Amino acid sequence: MERIRRSVVLLSGGCDSAVTLALARRECEEVYALTVAYGQRHRVEIDCAAALAASAGATAHRILEVDLSGWGGSSLTGHGPVPKDRTPEEAGAGVPPTYVPARNTILLALALAWAEVLEAEAIYIGVHVQDAGGYPDTRPDYLEAFARTAALATKAGREGRGPEIRAPLLHRAKGEVIALGRDLGVDFARTSSCYDPAPDGAPCGRCDSCRLRASGFREAGVVDPRAAAGEE
Amino acid sequence: MERIRRSVVLLSGGCDSAVTLALARRECEEVYALTVAYGQRHRVEIDCAAALAASAGATAHRILEVDLSGWGGSSLTGHGPVPKDRTPEEAGAGVPPTYVPARNTILLALALAWAEVLEAEAIYIGVHVQDAGGYPDTRPDYLEAFARTAALATKAGREGRGPEIRAPLLHRAKGEVIALGRDLGVDFARTSSCYDPAPDGAPCGRCDSCRLRASGFREAGVVDPRAAAGEE
Repeated sequence: MERIRRSVVLLSGGCDSAVTLALARRECEEVYALTVAYGQRHRVEIDCAAALAASAGATAHRILEVDLSGWGGSSLTGHGPVPKDRTPEEAGAGVPPTYVPARNTILLALALAWAEVLEAEAIYIGVHVQDAGGYPDTRPDYLEAFARTAALATKAGREGRGPEIRAPLLHRAKGEVIALGRDLGVDFARTSSCYDPAPDGAPCGRCDSCRLRASGFREAGVVDPRAAAGEE
Repeated sequence: MERIRRSVVLLSGGCDSAVTLALARRECEEVYALTVAYGQRHRVEIDCAAALAASAGATAHRILEVDLSGWGGSSLTGHGPVPKDRTPEEAGAGVPPTYVPARNTILLALALAWAEVLEAEAIYIGVHVQDAGGYPDTRPDYLEAFARTAALATKAGREGRGPEIRAPLLHRAKGEVIALGRDLGVDFARTSSCYDPAPDGAPCGRCDSCRLRASGFREAGVVDPRAAAGEE
């Protein structure tokens, strides 16, 4: 892939966005990391994002506050419990309560704004279709539709200079993502995947995201530096 | 048009969104007004939005803070001067410095999130193609692309229950918008259009938006209750 000058990377602080950031660093001269604090139950991910951006050598890291917790609709913003101890089949059946309405559209819209100011050539997002739970906004048809919107939404897009939407993990299984991150030198100790961590940031080990993370490390044959004692 | 149960209305506090709110009130049982404080130079519009929502009988009004001023890119968020005393031809030539990158995509994405939580059947936005300055994100092709994205972005959309994007002013001239607002009983004293008002909220009368507003009232033969003394 041709090396580009500048990109915006959506950085949540989880494994997927950490690996996406490392890929973007390889493909771009400068990466600008964007973390959106959207009213999550906790700030652990956001602290991880800051550490990841620094260690990956991002040119800048911006944390934007957009509090979506006020209108409810998701257990990730404090409305209802986070499901625990579900099998992959249970987690994959339908849209889970941890779904945050329109989250990726909000994230991509904000990244699009910053990308236009920076004249960035790409926006990176770490979604993949095998993500737990059948989220609607992690699928190829959605990303294609957003890219079409982006091309018409901005001055840069109308002039044919709008950013490409890159989702390099889209068709990778979780184990492949972890293996790729290992090969790229991602420091997984600085990532957080848990939907419901302890006050000290320790993962619960039981939510869908912890379980998917564990399966990914297991498939890749990599030891998770953040796994609770006694876990694989 | 068939009356629907519930909608989200993007309410900036300007004339167009005030008229859009009045139309939505006529077409929907309940309207939920959303104002985004995106780091504008001033809060005059936002105070107007609150007054408009109350006077129109909105079921709820939410003001969401999303500070886009940090990354620059627009004179509306404090980066560079607001152009003054331009002719309509000058104002309409190219994208003006008051363009806020990806603004409507951010606004629509946030409205989409709230609409999904509320199970709203429509999102109203007061854009029109004759708006000053050739903004990229006020055109029919853009709105169609966003609607397509919205249908794929959310759980509701995937299930065929996603909100319709309604832009009822899209093809109306400014004068028609003002005349329609008059017929619907919109209190234009509670609207603010100025890009650069005085500290007391008084319009400058010289920016593109003030000039477009004045031409709209003039075309409609309506007296603007907020026009500066000596203006038409």
